[in-house]
Amino acid sequence: MSGHTRERVLITTVPFGEVDSAPLELLGNAGIAYSINPLGRRLTEDELAEMIADYSAVIAGTEPLSDRVMAAGRRLRLVARVGIGLDNVDLNAARARGVAVTYTPDAPSPAVAELTIGLMINLLRGIGIADRECRRGAWRRIMGRRLSECIVGVIGCGRVGKRVIRHLRAGFPPAHILANDIAPDHVSPDLANVEWTTKADIYERADVITLHLPLTSATNRLIGAPELARMKPDVLLVNTSRGNMIVEADLAAALRRREIGGAAIDVFGREPYQGELCELENCLLTAHMGSMARDCRGRMEFEATQEVVRFFTGQPLQSVVPESEYALMESCS
Amino acid sequence: MSGHTRERVLITTVPFGEVDSAPLELLGNAGIAYSINPLGRRLTEDELAEMIADYSAVIAGTEPLSDRVMAAGRRLRLVARVGIGLDNVDLNAARARGVAVTYTPDAPSPAVAELTIGLMINLLRGIGIADRECRRGAWRRIMGRRLSECIVGVIGCGRVGKRVIRHLRAGFPPAHILANDIAPDHVSPDLANVEWTTKADIYERADVITLHLPLTSATNRLIGAPELARMKPDVLLVNTSRGNMIVEADLAAALRRREIGGAAIDVFGREPYQGELCELENCLLTAHMGSMARDCRGRMEFEATQEVVRFFTGQPLQSVVPESEYALMESCS
Repeated sequence: MSGHTRERVLITTVPFGEVDSAPLELLGNAGIAYSINPLGRRLTEDELAEMIADYSAVIAGTEPLSDRVMAAGRRLRLVARVGIGLDNVDLNAARARGVAVTYTPDAPSPAVAELTIGLMINLLRGIGIADRECRRGAWRRIMGRRLSECIVGVIGCGRVGKRVIRHLRAGFPPAHILANDIAPDHVSPDLANVEWTTKADIYERADVITLHLPLTSATNRLIGAPELARMKPDVLLVNTSRGNMIVEADLAAALRRREIGGAAIDVFGREPYQGELCELENCLLTAHMGSMARDCRGRMEFEATQEVVRFFTGQPLQSVVPESEYALMESCS
Repeated sequence: MSGHTRERVLITTVPFGEVDSAPLELLGNAGIAYSINPLGRRLTEDELAEMIADYSAVIAGTEPLSDRVMAAGRRLRLVARVGIGLDNVDLNAARARGVAVTYTPDAPSPAVAELTIGLMINLLRGIGIADRECRRGAWRRIMGRRLSECIVGVIGCGRVGKRVIRHLRAGFPPAHILANDIAPDHVSPDLANVEWTTKADIYERADVITLHLPLTSATNRLIGAPELARMKPDVLLVNTSRGNMIVEADLAAALRRREIGGAAIDVFGREPYQGELCELENCLLTAHMGSMARDCRGRMEFEATQEVVRFFTGQPLQSVVPESEYALMESCS
């Protein structure tokens, strides 16, 4: 174990080790020193650049791991992402600087998919609106719709999209599913009997639309005023993937003018979010909580920490970010 | 059609005919005059007694159809309940006064069951809390739990309880279901593989508890301080059936002292509700919206109206309240 004691890990994602202290024990048992992000929120690029100098590894959240940050991390050799999205990591800079990058692509999906279903029913039944009204002393019996009766458009049918479809198909029949991805997948059993179609067709036909895409230059600003204008006047939009895919100002304008029925937004261009969506009754807001379920969060933290331990004890990494993610990044830049 | 024109129907349940005007057209086509509750909310006993004198039938909501009200309804011959609960109808008084009573027991169930699932996920993930915090300018990433990981106690396994279990079993495996009813049902396919147990055992073991019972003297004040004290400290309670089954003051005290995790309450002893639960962050409140989904509400209104038309055109009623409901009422009084 000689030498491990000099390796230090910066844990930037918060909360960490609260659901389950196993990841911290894992580091302790391996003799790896760690510091947890003292600000208790997502770090800015400047903050991270200032903090990173002495650390060999980062157990990372969604803060910007840019080339500049990595340049400041003179000892940095590993970024272990807690989660699946890589939009905050400059993979090419990491490669150029010899920094390995791992992630935990499977662990968050069940939690994101369940939250998505919960947000859909919340919007369909006006749960958030009724709750707020009740607290104001009003009693508003909102007439809603059932998920089972809806046409649901799922844009992005990867790990999370597939699970959302599984919940819908098994739990809320006969909801009709419109699916879109880079190419139709006729192999996965979760995607049997969905109707593959274009995004444009989903915008026009769906009662509920949910996004399960990575943020890339191809998905950035995917839905703006022109797309919103094509949607049904009572359409409900759910975004639990990444901010910036829906143009927030355009969404706010459409909600304000009641050109669409409602939205549930868990992810924002800038987080913590404090913007005009907070003023709108027909927008439900949550705080990037897709992966925030005890079992999934615990698994994500543990898996990322295992990679750090493997790295510093000379074992092979098990969830290195695959080449396809680097290719995706290049094709988009 | 002679004579029909003199029959007048009072529609007390509101909203009515808004989702779909078919029930109103049905009355119009049959030459039956109607009035809709002009107050736009649940009527009190006094209001209803004052209003009812000239009407031969009531298309009824949950307002009190007591002996006194029926005495005031000198021409009353039919109560057609829009919905399933009969706790507001004095069935024995109706029988004594020769008033027929019909209901729509199947129509609301799908909407109530879906709302119940939505409320469960809302509580488990802190959706309502995060939304309120966000509107206050705070960003609170709440660590939640997944429905699939929970032990869910379903008290009452009739039409709604069965559907809730079906959603859970098919849509959120491997959620473990504890079930309770007057007697275990080993026949219904929806109830295969649930664990039948006592209410006391459910109070002690369940992570989420949901009530799907009729309000009778046996279920009135079912859950008060002693029952709440037996529950897990992070238990989540959902009630979409009837108020008065959970003692509201005891629930408020337990929530305030954080002796339980949270509650989602759709039904109250007095509605519109304006009480202390409105002040509690860990209580989610909705406005008796279980049946309020367009398809179900439309079906309930249409079915109740069909009974009125049948009654006044001399056709047999199709959904007369069965003898078992009268017996239930007698056994409880």
